[in-house]
Amino acid sequence: MKKRIVLALSGGMDSSSLLGTMLGNGNEVTCVSFRYSSKHNPYELRAARGIADHYRVPLVEINLTGAFNSFESALLTQSHKRIPEGHYQAETMKLTVVPCRNVIFIATLTGFAESIKASVVAIGVHAGDHAIYPDCRPPFIFAMRDVVDKATEGRVELAAPFLYRTKAQILEGGLQRKVPYQLTRTCYQNQEVACGRCGACQERLEAFELSKTMDPLDYVSREIMPK
Amino acid sequence: MKKRIVLALSGGMDSSSLLGTMLGNGNEVTCVSFRYSSKHNPYELRAARGIADHYRVPLVEINLTGAFNSFESALLTQSHKRIPEGHYQAETMKLTVVPCRNVIFIATLTGFAESIKASVVAIGVHAGDHAIYPDCRPPFIFAMRDVVDKATEGRVELAAPFLYRTKAQILEGGLQRKVPYQLTRTCYQNQEVACGRCGACQERLEAFELSKTMDPLDYVSREIMPK
Repeated sequence: MKKRIVLALSGGMDSSSLLGTMLGNGNEVTCVSFRYSSKHNPYELRAARGIADHYRVPLVEINLTGAFNSFESALLTQSHKRIPEGHYQAETMKLTVVPCRNVIFIATLTGFAESIKASVVAIGVHAGDHAIYPDCRPPFIFAMRDVVDKATEGRVELAAPFLYRTKAQILEGGLQRKVPYQLTRTCYQNQEVACGRCGACQERLEAFELSKTMDPLDYVSREIMPK
Repeated sequence: MKKRIVLALSGGMDSSSLLGTMLGNGNEVTCVSFRYSSKHNPYELRAARGIADHYRVPLVEINLTGAFNSFESALLTQSHKRIPEGHYQAETMKLTVVPCRNVIFIATLTGFAESIKASVVAIGVHAGDHAIYPDCRPPFIFAMRDVVDKATEGRVELAAPFLYRTKAQILEGGLQRKVPYQLTRTCYQNQEVACGRCGACQERLEAFELSKTMDPLDYVSREIMPK
Protein backbone atom coordinates (compact mmCIF):
# COMPACT_ATOMS: atom_id res chain seq x y z
CA MET A 1 0.00 0.00 0.00
CA LYS A 2 1.31 3.42 -0.96
CA LYS A 3 2.15 5.47 2.11
CA ARG A 4 2.95 9.08 2.86
CA ILE A 5 6.42 9.07 4.38
CA VAL A 6 8.64 11.66 6.05
CA LEU A 7 12.24 10.56 5.54
CA ALA A 8 15.30 11.95 7.33
CA LEU A 9 17.77 12.67 4.51
CA SER A 10 21.24 13.49 5.78
CA GLY A 11 22.81 13.31 2.34
CA GLY A 12 24.84 10.27 3.39
CA MET A 13 24.85 6.77 1.93
CA ASP A 14 22.32 5.19 4.26
CA SER A 15 19.52 7.74 4.09
CA SER A 16 20.01 8.09 0.32
CA SER A 17 19.75 4.31 -0.04
CA LEU A 18 16.64 4.38 2.14
CA LEU A 19 15.08 7.03 -0.10
CA GLY A 20 15.80 4.88 -3.17
CA THR A 21 14.17 1.88 -1.45
CA MET A 22 11.09 3.77 -0.26
CA LEU A 23 10.48 5.35 -3.67
CA GLY A 24 11.03 1.99 -5.35
CA ASN A 25 8.15 0.69 -3.25
CA GLY A 26 5.84 3.36 -4.71
CA ASN A 27 5.47 5.58 -1.64
CA GLU A 28 5.07 9.36 -1.54
CA VAL A 29 8.15 10.70 0.26
CA THR A 30 8.88 14.13 1.74
CA CYS A 31 12.50 14.46 2.84
CA VAL A 32 13.68 16.47 5.83
CA SER A 33 17.24 17.69 6.38
CA PHE A 34 18.41 19.24 9.61
CA ARG A 35 20.50 22.37 9.81
CA TYR A 36 22.59 22.33 12.98
CA SER A 37 26.05 23.18 14.13
CA SER A 38 27.94 20.04 13.11
CA LYS A 39 31.18 20.72 11.30
CA HIS A 40 30.16 18.78 8.18
CA ASN A 41 26.59 20.10 8.12
CA PRO A 42 26.93 22.54 5.16
CA TYR A 43 28.29 19.70 3.00
CA GLU A 44 25.55 17.32 4.16
CA LEU A 45 22.82 19.82 3.33
CA ARG A 46 24.20 20.37 -0.17
CA ALA A 47 24.41 16.61 -0.73
CA ALA A 48 20.84 16.12 0.53
CA ARG A 49 19.62 18.77 -1.91
CA GLY A 50 21.41 17.00 -4.77
CA ILE A 51 19.88 13.63 -3.84
CA ALA A 52 16.35 15.06 -3.46
CA ASP A 53 16.68 16.80 -6.83
CA HIS A 54 17.92 13.59 -8.41
CA TYR A 55 14.82 11.75 -7.19
CA ARG A 56 12.52 14.79 -7.77
CA VAL A 57 11.12 14.69 -4.23
CA PRO A 58 10.40 17.65 -1.91
CA LEU A 59 13.05 18.45 0.69
CA VAL A 60 12.25 20.56 3.77
CA GLU A 61 15.14 21.94 5.79
CA ILE A 62 14.46 22.27 9.53
CA ASN A 63 16.80 24.43 11.56
CA LEU A 64 17.83 22.83 14.87
CA THR A 65 20.87 25.01 15.44
CA GLY A 66 19.35 26.41 18.63
CA ALA A 67 18.70 22.97 20.11
CA PHE A 68 22.31 21.84 19.78
CA ASN A 69 24.02 25.13 20.60
CA SER A 70 24.25 24.33 24.31
CA PHE A 71 25.47 20.74 23.78
CA GLU A 72 29.00 19.41 24.01
CA SER A 73 30.41 17.18 21.22
CA ALA A 74 33.55 17.21 19.07
CA LEU A 75 31.20 17.02 16.08
CA LEU A 76 29.80 20.50 16.78
CA THR A 77 31.35 23.77 15.67
CA GLN A 78 31.23 25.25 19.19
CA SER A 79 33.60 22.52 20.42
CA HIS A 80 37.35 22.97 20.41
CA LYS A 81 37.86 19.20 20.29
CA ARG A 82 39.13 17.80 16.99
CA ILE A 83 37.26 15.10 15.05
CA PRO A 84 39.22 11.91 15.81
CA GLU A 85 40.64 9.67 13.08
CA GLY A 86 40.23 5.92 12.82
CA HIS A 87 37.44 3.39 13.19
CA TYR A 88 34.16 3.84 15.04
CA GLN A 89 35.11 1.16 17.54
CA ALA A 90 37.86 3.33 19.00
CA GLU A 91 37.09 4.96 22.35
CA THR A 92 38.01 8.39 20.94
CA MET A 93 35.18 8.20 18.41
CA LYS A 94 32.78 8.62 21.34
CA LEU A 95 33.77 12.27 21.25
CA THR A 96 31.65 12.58 18.11
CA VAL A 97 28.45 11.52 19.89
CA VAL A 98 25.98 14.40 19.87
CA PRO A 99 23.85 13.51 22.90
CA CYS A 100 20.29 12.51 21.95
CA ARG A 101 20.69 13.70 18.38
CA ASN A 102 18.44 10.96 17.01
CA VAL A 103 15.91 11.46 19.80
CA ILE A 104 15.61 15.13 18.82
CA PHE A 105 15.59 14.33 15.10
CA ILE A 106 12.86 11.67 15.39
CA ALA A 107 10.77 13.85 17.74
CA THR A 108 10.90 16.71 15.23
CA LEU A 109 10.23 14.45 12.24
CA THR A 110 7.17 13.06 14.01
CA GLY A 111 5.74 16.51 14.75
CA PHE A 112 6.35 17.45 11.12
CA ALA A 113 4.71 14.21 9.94
CA GLU A 114 1.60 15.08 11.98
CA SER A 115 1.57 18.55 10.42
CA ILE A 116 1.56 17.21 6.83
CA LYS A 117 -0.57 14.13 7.69
CA ALA A 118 2.12 11.58 6.87
CA SER A 119 1.79 8.13 8.48
CA VAL A 120 5.44 7.01 8.53
CA VAL A 121 8.72 8.51 9.76
CA ALA A 122 11.62 6.67 8.13
CA ILE A 123 15.22 6.79 9.29
CA GLY A 124 18.37 5.13 7.98
CA VAL A 125 20.01 3.91 11.21
CA HIS A 126 21.92 0.67 10.67
CA ALA A 127 23.93 -1.98 12.48
CA GLY A 128 27.21 -0.07 12.12
CA ASP A 129 25.84 2.74 14.29
CA HIS A 130 25.12 0.52 17.29
CA ALA A 131 28.52 0.34 18.95
CA ILE A 132 29.03 4.06 19.53
CA TYR A 133 25.60 5.71 19.39
CA PRO A 134 23.09 4.66 22.09
CA ASP A 135 20.26 6.32 20.20
CA CYS A 136 20.83 4.13 17.15
CA ARG A 137 20.55 0.77 18.98
CA PRO A 138 17.56 -1.54 18.68
CA PRO A 139 16.38 -1.07 22.32
CA PHE A 140 16.29 2.67 21.76
CA ILE A 141 14.53 2.36 18.40
CA PHE A 142 11.87 0.07 19.94
CA ALA A 143 11.28 2.51 22.81
CA MET A 144 11.11 5.40 20.34
CA ARG A 145 8.60 3.50 18.17
CA ASP A 146 6.39 3.32 21.23
CA VAL A 147 6.84 7.05 21.92
CA VAL A 148 5.93 7.93 18.33
CA ASP A 149 2.85 5.71 18.55
CA LYS A 150 1.66 7.18 21.87
CA ALA A 151 2.45 10.82 21.02
CA THR A 152 0.46 10.60 17.78
CA GLU A 153 -2.38 8.39 19.02
CA GLY A 154 -1.28 5.74 16.54
CA ARG A 155 -1.31 8.00 13.49
CA VAL A 156 2.44 7.81 12.83
CA GLU A 157 4.76 4.80 12.75
CA LEU A 158 8.55 4.91 13.08
CA ALA A 159 10.28 2.79 10.43
CA ALA A 160 13.96 1.84 10.55
CA PRO A 161 14.25 -0.85 7.87
CA PHE A 162 18.08 -0.90 7.91
CA LEU A 163 18.29 -1.40 11.69
CA TYR A 164 19.99 -4.79 11.39
CA ARG A 165 21.80 -4.26 8.10
CA THR A 166 25.50 -3.50 7.79
CA LYS A 167 26.68 -0.63 5.63
CA ALA A 168 27.99 -3.13 3.09
CA GLN A 169 24.55 -4.77 2.85
CA ILE A 170 22.87 -1.39 2.42
CA LEU A 171 25.37 -0.51 -0.29
CA GLU A 172 24.75 -3.79 -2.10
CA GLY A 173 21.01 -3.08 -2.28
CA GLY A 174 21.62 0.54 -3.24
CA LEU A 175 23.96 -0.35 -6.10
CA GLN A 176 21.24 -2.59 -7.55
CA ARG A 177 18.80 0.33 -7.33
CA LYS A 178 21.35 2.72 -8.86
CA VAL A 179 21.41 5.08 -5.86
CA PRO A 180 23.57 8.05 -6.97
CA TYR A 181 26.39 7.57 -4.45
CA GLN A 182 28.50 10.14 -6.32
CA LEU A 183 26.12 12.77 -4.90
CA THR A 184 26.32 11.63 -1.26
CA ARG A 185 28.48 13.04 1.55
CA THR A 186 29.83 11.01 4.47
CA CYS A 187 32.95 12.70 5.89
CA TYR A 188 32.73 14.39 9.34
CA GLN A 189 35.39 16.99 8.58
CA ASN A 190 34.79 20.61 7.69
CA GLN A 191 36.38 20.36 4.22
CA GLU A 192 35.27 19.97 0.61
CA VAL A 193 37.04 16.69 -0.26
CA ALA A 194 36.37 13.70 2.02
CA CYS A 195 39.29 13.11 4.42
CA GLY A 196 39.14 9.33 4.25
CA ARG A 197 40.42 9.05 7.83
CA CYS A 198 37.50 9.87 10.16
CA GLY A 199 35.29 7.05 11.43
CA ALA A 200 32.56 7.88 8.92
CA CYS A 201 34.94 7.80 5.92
CA GLN A 202 36.63 4.61 7.11
CA GLU A 203 33.31 2.81 7.47
CA ARG A 204 32.26 3.91 3.99
CA LEU A 205 35.54 2.93 2.34
CA GLU A 206 35.31 -0.48 4.00
CA ALA A 207 31.75 -1.02 2.72
CA PHE A 208 32.82 -0.24 -0.84
CA GLU A 209 35.82 -2.54 -0.51
CA LEU A 210 33.57 -5.37 0.71
CA SER A 211 31.25 -4.82 -2.27
CA LYS A 212 34.26 -4.79 -4.64
CA THR A 213 33.07 -1.50 -6.09
CA MET A 214 34.96 1.75 -6.54
CA ASP A 215 33.60 4.57 -4.36
CA PRO A 216 32.84 7.39 -6.85
CA LEU A 217 33.86 10.10 -4.34
CA ASP A 218 37.22 11.85 -4.19
CA TYR A 219 39.23 11.30 -0.99
CA VAL A 220 42.39 12.77 0.49
CA SER A 221 43.30 9.19 1.46
CA ARG A 222 41.57 5.90 0.61
CA GLU A 223 43.66 3.78 2.94
CA ILE A 224 41.69 1.60 5.36
CA MET A 225 43.35 1.76 8.78
CA PRO A 226 43.83 -1.29 11.01
CA LYS A 227 41.17 -1.69 13.72
CA MET B 1 20.12 12.14 47.96
CA LYS B 2 20.91 15.46 46.34
CA LYS B 3 20.63 15.25 42.55
CA ARG B 4 21.61 17.39 39.61
CA ILE B 5 18.38 18.16 37.79
CA VAL B 6 17.47 19.82 34.49
CA LEU B 7 13.97 21.26 34.87
CA ALA B 8 11.72 22.53 32.06
CA LEU B 9 10.54 25.93 33.31
CA SER B 10 7.76 27.38 31.17
CA GLY B 11 7.00 30.15 33.62
CA GLY B 12 3.56 28.68 34.31
CA MET B 13 2.09 27.43 37.59
CA ASP B 14 3.01 23.77 37.25
CA SER B 15 6.68 24.05 36.34
CA SER B 16 7.16 26.82 38.90
CA SER B 17 5.58 24.60 41.57
CA LEU B 18 7.82 21.76 40.45
CA LEU B 19 10.88 23.98 40.83
CA GLY B 20 9.81 24.91 44.35
CA THR B 21 9.36 21.22 45.20
CA MET B 22 12.67 20.12 43.71
CA LEU B 23 14.63 22.87 45.46
CA GLY B 24 12.81 22.12 48.71
CA ASN B 25 14.20 18.60 48.45
CA GLY B 26 17.75 20.00 48.35
CA ASN B 27 18.59 19.27 44.72
CA GLU B 28 20.79 21.30 42.38
CA VAL B 29 18.51 22.55 39.61
CA THR B 30 19.32 24.10 36.22
CA CYS B 31 16.21 25.43 34.49
CA VAL B 32 15.64 25.40 30.74
CA SER B 33 13.12 27.57 28.89
CA PHE B 34 12.28 27.11 25.24
CA ARG B 35 12.02 29.94 22.76
CA TYR B 36 9.63 29.00 19.97
CA SER B 37 6.90 30.55 17.92
CA SER B 38 3.93 30.18 20.28
CA LYS B 39 1.86 33.33 20.62
CA HIS B 40 2.37 33.55 24.38
CA ASN B 41 6.06 32.63 24.31
CA PRO B 42 7.55 36.11 24.99
CA TYR B 43 5.41 36.39 28.15
CA GLU B 44 6.32 32.85 29.23
CA LEU B 45 10.04 33.54 28.84
CA ARG B 46 9.80 36.70 30.91
CA ALA B 47 7.88 34.87 33.63
CA ALA B 48 10.41 32.01 33.64
CA ARG B 49 13.22 34.54 34.10
CA GLY B 50 11.39 36.09 37.04
CA ILE B 51 10.83 32.70 38.70
CA ALA B 52 14.44 31.60 38.19
CA ASP B 53 15.68 34.91 39.63
CA HIS B 54 13.33 34.53 42.60
CA TYR B 55 14.81 31.12 43.39
CA ARG B 56 18.37 32.16 42.39
CA VAL B 57 18.85 29.24 40.02
CA PRO B 58 20.48 29.26 36.55
CA LEU B 59 18.13 29.46 33.57
CA VAL B 60 19.27 28.45 30.07
CA GLU B 61 17.14 29.49 27.12
CA ILE B 62 17.16 27.05 24.19
CA ASN B 63 15.86 28.28 20.85
CA LEU B 64 13.56 25.78 19.13
CA THR B 65 11.95 28.26 16.77
CA GLY B 66 13.33 26.42 13.74
CA ALA B 67 11.89 23.08 14.86
CA PHE B 68 8.33 24.37 15.13
CA ASN B 69 8.36 26.72 12.15
CA SER B 70 7.07 24.06 9.77
CA PHE B 71 4.35 22.80 12.15
CA GLU B 72 0.64 23.59 12.15
CA SER B 73 -1.13 24.65 15.39
CA ALA B 74 -3.37 27.55 16.41
CA LEU B 75 -0.90 28.12 19.25
CA LEU B 76 1.87 29.12 16.84
CA THR B 77 2.39 32.57 15.36
CA GLN B 78 2.57 31.24 11.78
CA SER B 79 -1.03 29.99 12.08
CA HIS B 80 -3.99 32.15 11.11
CA LYS B 81 -6.26 30.17 13.43
CA ARG B 82 -7.42 31.97 16.58
CA ILE B 83 -6.80 30.61 20.08
CA PRO B 84 -10.19 29.15 21.09
CA GLU B 85 -11.97 30.19 24.30
CA GLY B 86 -13.44 27.85 26.91
CA HIS B 87 -12.41 24.68 28.69
CA TYR B 88 -9.76 22.18 27.61
CA GLN B 89 -12.38 19.48 27.20
CA ALA B 90 -13.91 21.27 24.22
CA GLU B 91 -13.09 19.82 20.79
CA THR B 92 -11.88 23.22 19.57
CA MET B 93 -9.09 23.26 22.16
CA LYS B 94 -7.40 20.52 20.13
CA LEU B 95 -6.43 23.30 17.74
CA THR B 96 -3.86 24.37 20.35
CA VAL B 97 -2.01 21.05 20.25
CA VAL B 98 1.51 21.59 18.95
CA PRO B 99 2.30 18.12 17.59
CA CYS B 100 4.99 16.34 19.60
CA ARG B 101 5.93 19.45 21.53
CA ASN B 102 6.73 17.51 24.68
CA VAL B 103 8.60 14.84 22.72
CA ILE B 104 10.86 17.52 21.27
CA PHE B 105 11.18 19.33 24.61
CA ILE B 106 12.12 16.17 26.54
CA ALA B 107 14.52 15.02 23.81
CA THR B 108 16.31 18.38 23.93
CA LEU B 109 16.32 18.50 27.75
CA THR B 110 17.89 15.04 27.82
CA GLY B 111 20.66 15.99 25.41
CA PHE B 112 21.31 19.10 27.47
CA ALA B 113 21.32 17.03 30.69
CA GLU B 114 23.98 14.76 29.18
CA SER B 115 26.05 17.83 28.25
CA ILE B 116 26.05 19.20 31.82
CA LYS B 117 26.18 15.75 33.47
CA ALA B 118 22.77 16.02 35.16
CA SER B 119 21.05 12.76 36.12
CA VAL B 120 17.39 13.84 36.06
CA VAL B 121 15.14 15.64 33.59
CA ALA B 122 12.06 16.96 35.42
CA ILE B 123 8.85 18.11 33.75
CA GLY B 124 5.60 19.47 35.19
CA VAL B 125 3.00 17.56 33.16
CA HIS B 126 -0.12 16.86 35.22
CA ALA B 127 -3.50 15.12 35.08
CA GLY B 128 -5.26 18.16 33.56
CA ASP B 129 -3.11 17.84 30.42
CA HIS B 130 -4.17 14.28 29.66
CA ALA B 131 -7.47 14.84 27.85
CA ILE B 132 -6.16 16.99 25.02
CA TYR B 133 -2.42 16.38 24.76
CA PRO B 134 -1.33 12.84 23.80
CA ASP B 135 2.27 13.61 24.77
CA CYS B 136 1.27 14.42 28.34
CA ARG B 137 -0.52 11.12 29.06
CA PRO B 138 0.95 8.39 31.28
CA PRO B 139 1.48 5.85 28.45
CA PHE B 140 3.53 8.45 26.57
CA ILE B 141 5.50 9.44 29.66
CA PHE B 142 6.33 5.80 30.41
CA ALA B 143 7.50 5.22 26.83
CA MET B 144 9.54 8.42 26.95
CA ARG B 145 11.13 7.35 30.25
CA ASP B 146 12.34 4.26 28.45
CA VAL B 147 13.67 6.34 25.53
CA VAL B 148 15.56 8.64 27.91
CA ASP B 149 17.03 5.61 29.69
CA LYS B 150 18.13 3.88 26.47
CA ALA B 151 19.44 7.01 24.74
CA THR B 152 21.63 7.89 27.73
CA GLU B 153 22.70 4.35 28.69
CA GLY B 154 20.91 4.83 32.01
CA ARG B 155 22.66 8.05 32.94
CA VAL B 156 19.51 10.21 32.85
CA GLU B 157 16.06 9.57 34.32
CA LEU B 158 12.84 11.32 33.29
CA ALA B 159 10.83 12.51 36.30
CA ALA B 160 7.22 13.71 36.08
CA PRO B 161 6.15 13.84 39.75
CA PHE B 162 2.87 15.69 39.01
CA LEU B 163 1.72 13.17 36.39
CA TYR B 164 -1.35 12.12 38.40
CA ARG B 165 -1.98 15.39 40.25
CA THR B 166 -4.66 17.89 39.31
CA LYS B 167 -3.83 21.55 38.96
CA ALA B 168 -5.72 22.23 42.22
CA GLN B 169 -3.56 19.67 44.05
CA ILE B 170 -0.37 21.16 42.60
CA LEU B 171 -1.54 24.62 43.65
CA GLU B 172 -2.29 23.42 47.18
CA GLY B 173 1.26 22.12 47.60
CA GLY B 174 2.72 25.23 45.98
CA LEU B 175 0.86 27.60 48.27
CA GLN B 176 2.32 25.79 51.28
CA ARG B 177 5.78 26.20 49.77
CA LYS B 178 5.11 29.88 48.98
CA VAL B 179 5.67 29.51 45.24
CA PRO B 180 5.53 33.08 43.83
CA TYR B 181 2.42 32.63 41.67
CA GLN B 182 2.25 36.38 41.11
CA LEU B 183 5.31 35.93 38.83
CA THR B 184 3.88 33.10 36.73
CA ARG B 185 2.22 33.30 33.30
CA THR B 186 -0.49 30.94 32.08
CA CYS B 187 -2.57 32.65 29.36
CA TYR B 188 -2.22 31.45 25.73
CA GLN B 189 -3.03 34.83 24.19
CA ASN B 190 -0.54 37.28 22.76
CA GLN B 191 -1.36 40.05 25.25
CA GLU B 192 0.07 41.48 28.46
CA VAL B 193 -2.89 40.90 30.82
CA ALA B 194 -4.23 37.34 31.04
CA CYS B 195 -7.45 36.97 29.03
CA GLY B 196 -9.17 34.68 31.54
CA ARG B 197 -11.09 32.95 28.73
CA CYS B 198 -8.66 30.57 26.99
CA GLY B 199 -8.44 26.96 28.19
CA ALA B 200 -5.23 27.64 30.09
CA CYS B 201 -6.68 30.62 31.99
CA GLN B 202 -9.94 28.79 32.74
CA GLU B 203 -8.10 25.81 34.20
CA ARG B 204 -5.99 28.11 36.36
CA LEU B 205 -8.93 30.16 37.62
CA GLU B 206 -10.75 26.95 38.49
CA ALA B 207 -7.76 25.64 40.47
CA PHE B 208 -7.60 28.85 42.52
CA GLU B 209 -11.35 28.73 43.11
CA LEU B 210 -11.08 25.14 44.35
CA SER B 211 -8.27 26.16 46.72
CA LYS B 212 -10.37 29.12 47.95
CA THR B 213 -7.45 31.44 47.25
CA MET B 214 -7.35 34.64 45.21
CA ASP B 215 -5.19 34.33 42.08
CA PRO B 216 -2.67 37.21 42.39
CA LEU B 217 -2.67 37.81 38.60
CA ASP B 218 -4.68 40.48 36.77
CA TYR B 219 -7.27 39.17 34.30
CA VAL B 220 -9.48 40.71 31.66
CA SER B 221 -12.21 38.39 32.96
CA ARG B 222 -12.24 36.04 35.97
CA GLU B 223 -15.52 34.37 35.11
CA ILE B 224 -15.40 30.56 34.98
CA MET B 225 -17.36 29.38 31.95
CA PRO B 226 -19.75 26.40 32.05
CA LYS B 227 -18.21 23.16 30.72
